[in-house]
Amino acid sequence: MSGRAIIFRRATKADLPSIIRLLADDDLGSQRERNEDPLPDSYYSAYEEIHKDSNHQLIVAELNGEVIGTLHLMFLPSISFQGGLRAQIESVRIDNEHQNRGIGSQMMKWTIERARARGAHIVQLTTHNSRGDAHRFYERLGFKGTHLGMKLSLK
Amino acid sequence: MSGRAIIFRRATKADLPSIIRLLADDDLGSQRERNEDPLPDSYYSAYEEIHKDSNHQLIVAELNGEVIGTLHLMFLPSISFQGGLRAQIESVRIDNEHQNRGIGSQMMKWTIERARARGAHIVQLTTHNSRGDAHRFYERLGFKGTHLGMKLSLK
Repeated sequence: MSGRAIIFRRATKADLPSIIRLLADDDLGSQRERNEDPLPDSYYSAYEEIHKDSNHQLIVAELNGEVIGTLHLMFLPSISFQGGLRAQIESVRIDNEHQNRGIGSQMMKWTIERARARGAHIVQLTTHNSRGDAHRFYERLGFKGTHLGMKLSLK
Repeated sequence: MSGRAIIFRRATKADLPSIIRLLADDDLGSQRERNEDPLPDSYYSAYEEIHKDSNHQLIVAELNGEVIGTLHLMFLPSISFQGGLRAQIESVRIDNEHQNRGIGSQMMKWTIERARARGAHIVQLTTHNSRGDAHRFYERLGFKGTHLGMKLSLK
């Protein structure tokens, strides 16, 4: 990684096409995203909802001016744990061409520190059962797979 | 259940002691809550954060004027799934004395309809690996355990 300038920052609306490209570029994502030009309006509406809410931060990793990673950090006020603030991370992606170079790990560590600075007592995420590499990746960062993640589709 | 008047409704500040009692009344919760009189201020601060945020709904189940169940419903704007709104449920509890009578199932179905009415495309939750009864309970409601839920403690 020496000599390379990785920047982690809040996403702007101009980053959306890059973010959708990353989300669509895997087996699960390709079935549920629409990586079209122009992008469907629903992506822009969701971006506006996220952007205006101080509990939500859409993050990108930029390498040499190109967006090569993304995640969505959110803060969830909660009664449990004595009213403790939770951080949750969704939609983590690193460009296939840049994987296994430590960028994902850097992005996660940067995000975890951001959660800690905000006062969160825990960072939580779920990963699909089929993503074994992701499970090991998160375990190396200190995450423990203590929970079953369950989903009910309403469509 | 015939003849009994179950009401599901948004929680008020006056419900907090009942909610904390429910959260504290199990093996995991007893280790992390402080069910004291008066309650620690952190619970009230968290309640205010939840109450003022239109994406969060703290719910209680009331039977004959007594709070016997609770859950926290939240709506999460998201870029993924074509900018689809997610619903998430946390901190589900039914009073031990009222379990196995279908009240939890009624509360969840009421909540799922609330999520559907808001336009969520999915309802997601995690349950601790040790809560096997809960896994079967959610499966009966249609949830699928497709994900590993991972947590990183920051304390």
